[in-house]
Amino acid sequence: MSGATVDPAVLEKVRGWRPYVEAKLGFRNHWYPAVFSHELLEDKPVETMLLGESILLNRLDGKPRAIRNRCLHRGVKFSKQVECYKKGTITCWYHAWTYNWADGELSDIITNPSSSLIGKHRLKTYPVREEKGLIFVFVGDIDPPDLSSDVPPGFLDEGMAIHGKRRMVKSNWRLGVENGFDASHIFIHKRSKLVAGNDIALPLGFAPIDAGDSTRAVIGDTGPTGLYDLLGEKSIPVFEGELSGETVIEGHFGAKKVADNISIWLPGVLKVDPWPQEGMNQFEWYVPVDATTHCYLQVLGRMTATKEEADAFRQEVDAKWIELALDGFNDDDVWAREATEEFYGDNDRGWIEERLFETDMAIVEWRKLASQRNRGIQRSDNL
Amino acid sequence: MSGATVDPAVLEKVRGWRPYVEAKLGFRNHWYPAVFSHELLEDKPVETMLLGESILLNRLDGKPRAIRNRCLHRGVKFSKQVECYKKGTITCWYHAWTYNWADGELSDIITNPSSSLIGKHRLKTYPVREEKGLIFVFVGDIDPPDLSSDVPPGFLDEGMAIHGKRRMVKSNWRLGVENGFDASHIFIHKRSKLVAGNDIALPLGFAPIDAGDSTRAVIGDTGPTGLYDLLGEKSIPVFEGELSGETVIEGHFGAKKVADNISIWLPGVLKVDPWPQEGMNQFEWYVPVDATTHCYLQVLGRMTATKEEADAFRQEVDAKWIELALDGFNDDDVWAREATEEFYGDNDRGWIEERLFETDMAIVEWRKLASQRNRGIQRSDNL
Amino acid sequence: MSGATVDPAVLEKVRGWRPYVEAKLGFRNHWYPAVFSHELLEDKPVETMLLGESILLNRLDGKPRAIRNRCLHRGVKFSKQVECYKKGTITCWYHAWTYNWADGELSDIITNPSSSLIGKHRLKTYPVREEKGLIFVFVGDIDPPDLSSDVPPGFLDEGMAIHGKRRMVKSNWRLGVENGFDASHIFIHKRSKLVAGNDIALPLGFAPIDAGDSTRAVIGDTGPTGLYDLLGEKSIPVFEGELSGETVIEGHFGAKKVADNISIWLPGVLKVDPWPQEGMNQFEWYVPVDATTHCYLQVLGRMTATKEEADAFRQEVDAKWIELALDGFNDDDVWAREATEEFYGDNDRGWIEERLFETDMAIVEWRKLASQRNRGIQRSDNL
Repeated sequence: MSGATVDPAVLEKVRGWRPYVEAKLGFRNHWYPAVFSHELLEDKPVETMLLGESILLNRLDGKPRAIRNRCLHRGVKFSKQVECYKKGTITCWYHAWTYNWADGELSDIITNPSSSLIGKHRLKTYPVREEKGLIFVFVGDIDPPDLSSDVPPGFLDEGMAIHGKRRMVKSNWRLGVENGFDASHIFIHKRSKLVAGNDIALPLGFAPIDAGDSTRAVIGDTGPTGLYDLLGEKSIPVFEGELSGETVIEGHFGAKKVADNISIWLPGVLKVDPWPQEGMNQFEWYVPVDATTHCYLQVLGRMTATKEEADAFRQEVDAKWIELALDGFNDDDVWAREATEEFYGDNDRGWIEERLFETDMAIVEWRKLASQRNRGIQRSDNL
Repeated sequence: MSGATVDPAVLEKVRGWRPYVEAKLGFRNHWYPAVFSHELLEDKPVETMLLGESILLNRLDGKPRAIRNRCLHRGVKFSKQVECYKKGTITCWYHAWTYNWADGELSDIITNPSSSLIGKHRLKTYPVREEKGLIFVFVGDIDPPDLSSDVPPGFLDEGMAIHGKRRMVKSNWRLGVENGFDASHIFIHKRSKLVAGNDIALPLGFAPIDAGDSTRAVIGDTGPTGLYDLLGEKSIPVFEGELSGETVIEGHFGAKKVADNISIWLPGVLKVDPWPQEGMNQFEWYVPVDATTHCYLQVLGRMTATKEEADAFRQEVDAKWIELALDGFNDDDVWAREATEEFYGDNDRGWIEERLFETDMAIVEWRKLASQRNRGIQRSDNL
Repeated sequence: MSGATVDPAVLEKVRGWRPYVEAKLGFRNHWYPAVFSHELLEDKPVETMLLGESILLNRLDGKPRAIRNRCLHRGVKFSKQVECYKKGTITCWYHAWTYNWADGELSDIITNPSSSLIGKHRLKTYPVREEKGLIFVFVGDIDPPDLSSDVPPGFLDEGMAIHGKRRMVKSNWRLGVENGFDASHIFIHKRSKLVAGNDIALPLGFAPIDAGDSTRAVIGDTGPTGLYDLLGEKSIPVFEGELSGETVIEGHFGAKKVADNISIWLPGVLKVDPWPQEGMNQFEWYVPVDATTHCYLQVLGRMTATKEEADAFRQEVDAKWIELALDGFNDDDVWAREATEEFYGDNDRGWIEERLFETDMAIVEWRKLASQRNRGIQRSDNL
């Protein structure tokens, strides 16, 4: 896959977070949400791409399955024409090599039932988990840790109702993470109708007070590994935008305080608490698709006590919050990430030519943490 | 031309047929059909591309001619605006360098008739032969052998009437050859209306009987070099498609036995005998155009005794066989080759990552034969 | 930027004008016209690209300004969404880094007014001059010499009224220069309605008389550096186009003698005097945009004594000469350059595979002069 590898001359100049810069296609041996549960119907295979790997998802007897979407024989994609002659199997349209969804075993070859290869080869399968209306796929080679080690705290809590949307964004996944976790990027939301229409307090930026670390890392032994941005506590929010001492633009000094608590988690998922209003959270994944695309998967969460409450919450998300928050507010972010891709995607020059400032320290800490605590870097020879 | 060269690291891993893998742009010093006779009118130059070389064809006093489509001076294509001021010559539209079609001599420069270059340089010309309604061009540097050494046996026979069509396919030429010569690929034709509507016997595949060689090579001294697939004799045809012992799909057990005799010939042309019915043959070329495109030139042939019979045959092809066989049946093949290009075209990885099975032995033998018996490999510095 | 660098193996084979071949993106430390004055309105920033550098132009209090169109922070383009909160400044839409147009100083950061970076960094600014209705930008690092050293003689003369148009052409800038300065290229204009309709003398080409140098160089100490083509004096114009001694095409033997005096000037601007008729000049720039695009900026000039005369001249250009000359005649040149790009743009092979003839000596002298007298080569690390 072209563009998947970073020029060694660039890598040599990176100090402190070289593995992160190498991870153009993402971190291997992690769980990623691929699609929503409602997108995966019984025995209707769906193609997806994660970390540059083409994967075929399916649901069999209700259980989600995932296999490499490429026949071992001549490398064609099953998804070009899905053929299934017996439940639990998939047959390649070209020479009828047939695999089991469950374990990838080459169980039959219809065109040559006497082939010595039958039973001797396995197609790569991927561990899959379905939680909170999402299909999670483990892209890697090791025994997968529990899903809870790769999602933000609270996400899997009983009673946490989850609902949202996903879309493709034309930027590398890291520009998604860094846009989301970047405190100062809120400047781009200054004209958002979510903010004005909902009496939300949203400053233009933050002036850090020099008072030690502005982040707090959580290293997951059983739980997830991530980083809290403490800038809210350790800075003065900027509501008056000044140039040469003259106020030229103002932030929104609303009554509702939101986004108190912002954290980023491996392998690249943000939690904003509360958001877009008290009692709700936003979780958003920036799933690596290829070198210049990520899947932006945004969900809102609320603790609910009953199924009725959960259903009502999902209806509320559909009726109100998708338009106002997930689209209305976050469309600005999509646009910003795509605008940043040009510089970082131009032979990865951005990683060595960028010039960071004080409020980027949280991003720097994320890069370091991700460099140290990831479970592997996706390489082009994994594709 | 980008993508014309194979990564040496890939070539190193190829065992047994490295020259074949190198021949991404085809084999040099062979005859290739470029267009049909009816496509080449008197003094109406036509641009074509063979093995990555842009070539200008013309017909002068009925005789076909071919020259490199690139002025020696500043490298522009004559075909951008064909200018001809005297029969038998072509004048470059830019600075009026003028060449003879017959020998490529730079015979005049209209803009500077006193130039010392006149008469001193030659544009590359290509030997051309017109046979069976096709214009054959010899792409190479050596004295061309007879055309008969590069076409399948029988093709040039007196009385053999030939008619067909051609089209561009977005795959490397070798994926065309291997699709055509591959016995097991018939699985993709399982729903073809040619088969069902004509009572043709077409199994789903072949289970080889371990009985020695499944191919027979013919090394041409005067005639062509090629390979017969003997799998028909040395295998059990599979009409019952089984998974775990249960029949899940069936082949066509028609009364008409066809395709008894399948052979592949250098530089890349297949003969199927008989096809699509008794008394007819299909010949098909996979002519290299560029690294990811081949011209699929399909003709049907029948022995005829008179001109009237030959005309009737061509009318029959137009009225019936193009729709039913050359399109109806072979459209499946076009689609399959294009679907295979992704893997083999991705830095040529397919050549070293593919995993072949028993019925691919004929393909393996073809690769070896082609590696040993080709007359040269097209290199990017020939372009 | 892809394609900005020339393969060293190609450069090694170039004799006599290697720096010129290296200058794929143009010569650095020269003045280039970017847009017409009327395209640059008060405080309406306009994006342009010169020599591969994205530049933002603006007009403030009537004075043109130019800055690098890329924020120092995360490298985004200001032009994606221009934000200006105080006259004389530009604020990046992403994190509100704010720069002065005049000197590029990072004067404020709205999102973090306490940042230590404020006042410590400078964005690249470009010297700008507005003359003759054109905005000239100096792309380089040195103290700019006077504009007069980079425009043809006469262009800046008092009373010289200038008017014209510009457009993007899909070829490298050098193919523009060489098309314009090439005496023999006039063959492509043989059917131009400007020529036929205006009784202009236009031969088909020139047969040089062997009488020494066909060019005369002017090395600018204070003025521009360039080269006059003396071929007009030292050749026999070809009006009868002959092939094997037979006249097959004729030039235009009109009464009006034009284009007596053709000269090319660094960094790549042609002067044709007189043209398209007595008392007028054409000046045309081939401004490098990226490796495969140049901006073709064509103007006509006439000496005028009063503002009324100058206005009348510009009206005449609009009413007559754009259609007849700048489009009607020069469209042929645009087409020819784009047709030449294929060969020279294919890994720069044209520079070593071309085969020049006698009337190309002026081009050769230009290449040598440009190689010796340019003020620098644009490199990809300047981008």
